[in-house]
Amino acid sequence: MSTADTRIETDSLGEVAVPAQRYWGAQTQRSLENFRIGGERMPAALVTALGIQKKAAAQANHALSLLPAEIADAVIRAADEVIDGKLTDEFPLVVWQTGSGTQTNMNANEVIAGRANEMLAGKRGGKSPVHPNDHVNRCQSSNDSFPTVMHIAAAREVTSRLLPALRELHTALAAKAKAFAGIVKIGRTHLQDATPLTLGQEIGAWARQVQNGIARLEAALPHVLELAQGGTAVGTGLNAHPRFAALFAEKAATLTGLPFRTAPDTFEALGSHDALVELSGALNTVAVSLHKIANDVRLLGSGPRAGLGELLLPENEPGSSIMPGKVNPTQAEALTMVAARVIGNHATVTFAGASGHLQLNVYKPVIADAVLQSIRLLADSAESFARHCIAGMEPNRARIAEQLERSLMLVTALNPHIGYDKAAKIARKAHLEGLSLREAALALGFVTAEQFDAWVRPEHMTAPDTGAT
Amino acid sequence: MSTADTRIETDSLGEVAVPAQRYWGAQTQRSLENFRIGGERMPAALVTALGIQKKAAAQANHALSLLPAEIADAVIRAADEVIDGKLTDEFPLVVWQTGSGTQTNMNANEVIAGRANEMLAGKRGGKSPVHPNDHVNRCQSSNDSFPTVMHIAAAREVTSRLLPALRELHTALAAKAKAFAGIVKIGRTHLQDATPLTLGQEIGAWARQVQNGIARLEAALPHVLELAQGGTAVGTGLNAHPRFAALFAEKAATLTGLPFRTAPDTFEALGSHDALVELSGALNTVAVSLHKIANDVRLLGSGPRAGLGELLLPENEPGSSIMPGKVNPTQAEALTMVAARVIGNHATVTFAGASGHLQLNVYKPVIADAVLQSIRLLADSAESFARHCIAGMEPNRARIAEQLERSLMLVTALNPHIGYDKAAKIARKAHLEGLSLREAALALGFVTAEQFDAWVRPEHMTAPDTGAT
Amino acid sequence: MSTADTRIETDSLGEVAVPAQRYWGAQTQRSLENFRIGGERMPAALVTALGIQKKAAAQANHALSLLPAEIADAVIRAADEVIDGKLTDEFPLVVWQTGSGTQTNMNANEVIAGRANEMLAGKRGGKSPVHPNDHVNRCQSSNDSFPTVMHIAAAREVTSRLLPALRELHTALAAKAKAFAGIVKIGRTHLQDATPLTLGQEIGAWARQVQNGIARLEAALPHVLELAQGGTAVGTGLNAHPRFAALFAEKAATLTGLPFRTAPDTFEALGSHDALVELSGALNTVAVSLHKIANDVRLLGSGPRAGLGELLLPENEPGSSIMPGKVNPTQAEALTMVAARVIGNHATVTFAGASGHLQLNVYKPVIADAVLQSIRLLADSAESFARHCIAGMEPNRARIAEQLERSLMLVTALNPHIGYDKAAKIARKAHLEGLSLREAALALGFVTAEQFDAWVRPEHMTAPDTGAT
Amino acid sequence: MSTADTRIETDSLGEVAVPAQRYWGAQTQRSLENFRIGGERMPAALVTALGIQKKAAAQANHALSLLPAEIADAVIRAADEVIDGKLTDEFPLVVWQTGSGTQTNMNANEVIAGRANEMLAGKRGGKSPVHPNDHVNRCQSSNDSFPTVMHIAAAREVTSRLLPALRELHTALAAKAKAFAGIVKIGRTHLQDATPLTLGQEIGAWARQVQNGIARLEAALPHVLELAQGGTAVGTGLNAHPRFAALFAEKAATLTGLPFRTAPDTFEALGSHDALVELSGALNTVAVSLHKIANDVRLLGSGPRAGLGELLLPENEPGSSIMPGKVNPTQAEALTMVAARVIGNHATVTFAGASGHLQLNVYKPVIADAVLQSIRLLADSAESFARHCIAGMEPNRARIAEQLERSLMLVTALNPHIGYDKAAKIARKAHLEGLSLREAALALGFVTAEQFDAWVRPEHMTAPDTGAT
Repeated sequence: MSTADTRIETDSLGEVAVPAQRYWGAQTQRSLENFRIGGERMPAALVTALGIQKKAAAQANHALSLLPAEIADAVIRAADEVIDGKLTDEFPLVVWQTGSGTQTNMNANEVIAGRANEMLAGKRGGKSPVHPNDHVNRCQSSNDSFPTVMHIAAAREVTSRLLPALRELHTALAAKAKAFAGIVKIGRTHLQDATPLTLGQEIGAWARQVQNGIARLEAALPHVLELAQGGTAVGTGLNAHPRFAALFAEKAATLTGLPFRTAPDTFEALGSHDALVELSGALNTVAVSLHKIANDVRLLGSGPRAGLGELLLPENEPGSSIMPGKVNPTQAEALTMVAARVIGNHATVTFAGASGHLQLNVYKPVIADAVLQSIRLLADSAESFARHCIAGMEPNRARIAEQLERSLMLVTALNPHIGYDKAAKIARKAHLEGLSLREAALALGFVTAEQFDAWVRPEHMTAPDTGAT
Repeated sequence: MSTADTRIETDSLGEVAVPAQRYWGAQTQRSLENFRIGGERMPAALVTALGIQKKAAAQANHALSLLPAEIADAVIRAADEVIDGKLTDEFPLVVWQTGSGTQTNMNANEVIAGRANEMLAGKRGGKSPVHPNDHVNRCQSSNDSFPTVMHIAAAREVTSRLLPALRELHTALAAKAKAFAGIVKIGRTHLQDATPLTLGQEIGAWARQVQNGIARLEAALPHVLELAQGGTAVGTGLNAHPRFAALFAEKAATLTGLPFRTAPDTFEALGSHDALVELSGALNTVAVSLHKIANDVRLLGSGPRAGLGELLLPENEPGSSIMPGKVNPTQAEALTMVAARVIGNHATVTFAGASGHLQLNVYKPVIADAVLQSIRLLADSAESFARHCIAGMEPNRARIAEQLERSLMLVTALNPHIGYDKAAKIARKAHLEGLSLREAALALGFVTAEQFDAWVRPEHMTAPDTGAT
Repeated sequence: MSTADTRIETDSLGEVAVPAQRYWGAQTQRSLENFRIGGERMPAALVTALGIQKKAAAQANHALSLLPAEIADAVIRAADEVIDGKLTDEFPLVVWQTGSGTQTNMNANEVIAGRANEMLAGKRGGKSPVHPNDHVNRCQSSNDSFPTVMHIAAAREVTSRLLPALRELHTALAAKAKAFAGIVKIGRTHLQDATPLTLGQEIGAWARQVQNGIARLEAALPHVLELAQGGTAVGTGLNAHPRFAALFAEKAATLTGLPFRTAPDTFEALGSHDALVELSGALNTVAVSLHKIANDVRLLGSGPRAGLGELLLPENEPGSSIMPGKVNPTQAEALTMVAARVIGNHATVTFAGASGHLQLNVYKPVIADAVLQSIRLLADSAESFARHCIAGMEPNRARIAEQLERSLMLVTALNPHIGYDKAAKIARKAHLEGLSLREAALALGFVTAEQFDAWVRPEHMTAPDTGAT
Repeated sequence: MSTADTRIETDSLGEVAVPAQRYWGAQTQRSLENFRIGGERMPAALVTALGIQKKAAAQANHALSLLPAEIADAVIRAADEVIDGKLTDEFPLVVWQTGSGTQTNMNANEVIAGRANEMLAGKRGGKSPVHPNDHVNRCQSSNDSFPTVMHIAAAREVTSRLLPALRELHTALAAKAKAFAGIVKIGRTHLQDATPLTLGQEIGAWARQVQNGIARLEAALPHVLELAQGGTAVGTGLNAHPRFAALFAEKAATLTGLPFRTAPDTFEALGSHDALVELSGALNTVAVSLHKIANDVRLLGSGPRAGLGELLLPENEPGSSIMPGKVNPTQAEALTMVAARVIGNHATVTFAGASGHLQLNVYKPVIADAVLQSIRLLADSAESFARHCIAGMEPNRARIAEQLERSLMLVTALNPHIGYDKAAKIARKAHLEGLSLREAALALGFVTAEQFDAWVRPEHMTAPDTGAT
């Protein structure tokens, strides 16, 4: 950069040349130069949450008379631009920086001060009249601000993005469970033919998994709603006004509509990230559930002629660059790949959560990145799966009927009447000799034809049977 | 084995020679011979839970008039012997068997029938008068019994073993936090000197982590208290009496004192193990917390002369086979190794939970083994750590005072008075020139001696400061 | 214990009462009392390796005139008893102890000294004439001995147990690949019908995976064959004779038949366990391969009437406690559960390997336990799978033929002749109207009957086709 | 989009409106619309590799007379633009799509055809004269092309990016190990004071870890150099010319300078991704090594006044938004966060690799994404760590000397002279009474002053001692 294109900003280590058109200051610029690692910028949801955090802090500081109205107002207006996504390009730092997220907190402080200064004094950047540390970061440290921002971002993404998507998926599954409640089909355990159930029951289990996943996420939220803000550098709250923490939480709650509160132990909230490990565990469980569901969908949709073939999946796109006419369960595949990523993210979060030291866990950015990615991917893929796969999924009734009819496991209905051992003999004979169950049963003489027809009725086998008594 | 030492038992595939002195039958014997893999037998807690499950089932069946009193009574008495650990050697099967746990369920059915037959007819083993399938397994399938047993075992181990151990650890930590509440010490963030806090605050954060861990486990229990029993083979409840499921849950609750209930969706309860993935996630979070605590303990206890040296840990044993007089933080090490194992177990459970197919997840034994091991290890090591490490842990007051005094980060107290930039200059000058903060501050002329002494007081820096306003 | 049943042993912390009949001493006893955690004893393979290590050390010390013949001889004889498994009960310590394994190293020192003293002086235990530290542990520290033992155990288990088992499985798969080379069947991608291949090609891919796994393990051995011995406490070799390390490696190589050598950097060999993380990575890859193979086997063996049904798996045992006649792919299930465990063990080893500090990684026992369990389980389950599943696996030729014939993906053979787009139209028409490919092709008029019959020949579609030019 | 801004493209499912200015066609557009999941586009290294793959295929097809010169030439020129990064915006698809990567392969086919058509006929897009399937994808399927591209990208990134970065880090560490070879310092095991070593030895162990990591990556490359190309849809090579596979590998090798060859078993190469699981295992081991190194660096650099304080790390930026003058080990933190991510990526790759079915593993994009991210992040962070941390790292000689002098573990030098038990008594007395070792030794009368001074010399304790004999 020529000097014409830059201006000089300073921090405690000295002067730094910064691109003239940028709002950021010395510390952002140093991070840019010292951490040329990967290209993964801080997630957008985190940047938005930084705007919310700086705004709430300015409101609280003003209420406490720690910021004059003019300063507070400018900070709030600049923070609003961060929230509204107008300053996205001003947050160029990558995840792979200092483990406290200090550089991104300073990025926000510098950009908001720089923009506020432009509003107030017509000159972009700098530290006057609005100072990044003394005003924007007032009563704060990166050490309490950054985990606060992580929690705000995670709570907002879960509640506004993931939970609605899972509810949509649940609704789609529940509708199919209801629609197909009358279709009796063969069950499969160990991937082997088993006793029958209805297609509605089968899909209902998936709906229940999703419903439980929603409950799991909701159960993980309370600790995420606890904010570190107010702890400042090590949890003591040094240099923060005694009422700042509570006021901040109140403002943050108002701005987001979420019941944030000050963490009961700010030392815990800086030194560990158990709350996000817990949340990641819930995301992991949701991923496990969705992987199972998607895997079942592609198993039941396998075919069209040499698979199980019980479900007809929507044909959204050609499936092969070489096999004409092939259609694949691509939405299920995207979802299972997302599950694999979320499971890996959980390993990252677990490792990072367990590796903190003393007053500060310094794996904050990677934890934020992984948790927010998991939330986003699960939300988007659940929604896509609901819309592009489940909504259009139909039963292949002929195939279902054919497979049910041939099943040997209908023999189970005979247990209460002739005992397990005799029933086993019938199934075995039918299997080895290629007979139908009825043929084998009669040949062995264990039942009469009338008994067989009365007892072996698939449509009566999908619920506990009072005949069992 | 000579035929003198064996008797012949049968199953649907034919005859099998079984050791004469054993209670088990053909299917247990087949599993023993077909699965010579590793040596990890089914966990003891699972075998106990099998006894409880068979007992509750017999009680329910008798109440429903599905088992005559004499048969039910014998089954119950034999099941009691399983619960009491009298038949431990009769459960020789390893974890690495069929993925439904059918062989272990049949092991229980055979042993209980075999022992009941001995009671009733004086002859060990066999299927008469008590039949393993038709009586002991009445109204059941392995497919609902085994997951029921997994849940009973996990719920009992968490409530009777892990939660008490964590409460003991919490009590020990909270006592130390209180005892050391008055000791002001240097904080450390990024492992670098930071502003002060009290030793009580530091330990209090650990206590909070444990307390939250207890809450996390309690939050994971509700789904574990849901039992698959009543779903039989695929979730439909075929061949079970319509009231069996509810009666069973009632009996199981009475036998264990835990509020078990029938799973609202038995299809979900057979086809997935999300409830145990969820529980494993809570165990994983507890492991993460304990790893952080134990790691901090060994960091603060490092030395004695070339480490941080702030904590004096109990000397439980000599530490080195070559370095005389060495004492190591061995309890912390055992606990961190347990954490590593629990984190690995969680990876196993996650993988296994995600890999099930259709009506039955067939990774049941490995899930049971991993979850029960995690519970047991966390419980035992938390208790050991509380008793052999935390209880005897003392502060090294001289060392703590020395390190606090020398710290440069006390400069932070000057921020509200002279601003961040000037305070930074003082710290930097002191650091580079090896001065005390006071010397550097006065040399730079930013404060008077009186101001410095009034403002920089570590004992005032461990809480939000009204002076900050 | 009454004092009659105990004797007094001492260590640097004082006196300890030890069961009179035991060979161990004070430090073993202290560990037993201080670490009541779980029940997982040090793996048998590790105890054997301890015997080898102490024997090789005594041989080296004697050769260097550091141990008199009588002492060395007694130590060697006692070590032989450890190797031969005669003293198994003398190694009661659990994995969850000090992270250096010092207590188990001292256990070996004490037991061997105690047994040697009995041989020489008629009195069990004690430190004279043979001293656990000064003689048995001569020129050693736990810090170099224990990682040495870990490597000896892992290398022996891989070479003598796992590699032979994988070779047996490879042989079994290769034999089936050859036997079924002529069976043309439908391929499946995305679980959807695809172009044909032979059953031999399908199984051959599994054989190749196993073959590559063998190569991967062999490639991981070189670093495992590097021994830390000679580094003593921190890697410097303090108190070890300068020629001890090389002599020890020579003796260890002779005793085991494996080309052990001294680690080129003993500091690295104590402070990290990268070599075992690397080996665990190879075990993880093998687990991934075996999971894929076993999963394919159960998919192809699914049925018998409502699955893919192409493979007939051996019926080793009854499959269900409620569904008579059911037979399940239990060997595949055991193998996939082992894979889940090995994947979890790898997570444990990765975490533990990454978490070491400075001169000593103190997660040694858990790393040893996890790696040795993975080796053992993979070996046993690969062997069991080969013998009880692959060896008896047969094709269901009728089913294979039927599914091949109906496939729409044979249309791919028309691409080079009529282009992708027209071929796609044929497949689509056949699919939607339930036609055969031939019918659809002729109806659309894209080919003549003669052309169709000449071009669409499954048996010509299992290799690159010169006709494609 | 208004129709003015779009053109109509077609595929086997029908017509699709595509943005007029784009080169892509119907299938890319469908994927864009059907997979609105996350924002992670296919990695740049993968897109480049797609260009190489299409170019090599066109060269091979032309050599086999399967493509006329004019067509081949246009395809090659368009592929060159992909390689040169001129068409980056034409690859908008995300990772979360079909698990075969078919949509991205078609994206490449469409864009290259679309650009070639523009070159040849002046009209962007379309299928004439150059057809995406029949020409660009000639002799190929997505099923062999995409894994080929994964391997090309991974091999190029490892060899051209990661290995050079690790070599740079190794050089930096080795230089410091040499420069500090004469500095004797205290060792630490269990984080407790231990016997001395040199700072050069300590850093040399890190250098060895990196050197071994390079060897591990090189050992993992051979399987990555095996290409699936030639297997087409299921591994048989249907519709590929018999000499296409070998010719392709030759062209790919020439274009990249890497010794690519056709996979010996193309069925294995489509159905599994063991080669990338293996590579990911090597990346995981490197991450473990780097985490250990970075963690040690921050431990040794902890302070400045209340930590170990032995290393002075470069001050690259201000460390705190609240604590003036604070400097943190930020490069070490970035590196440890990268390690956490790579470990998570490995969990993802392991899960995905284990979950494939039959002829095609359909977790290809997530495997590619995770492996390529791991390579990139390790490379960038290793380089950054070498340049911004290791290069400027200096010893704090005064601190090192002070801590060495006070150490009690120098007592170990007395073992060979007075035995372990007496040496332990000296250390214990010194510890409990706050004495120096020398004072304690003389007070106990175990050695004379002359003996102590002759035997306890730290500078003689950093190598095996012939005095030990």
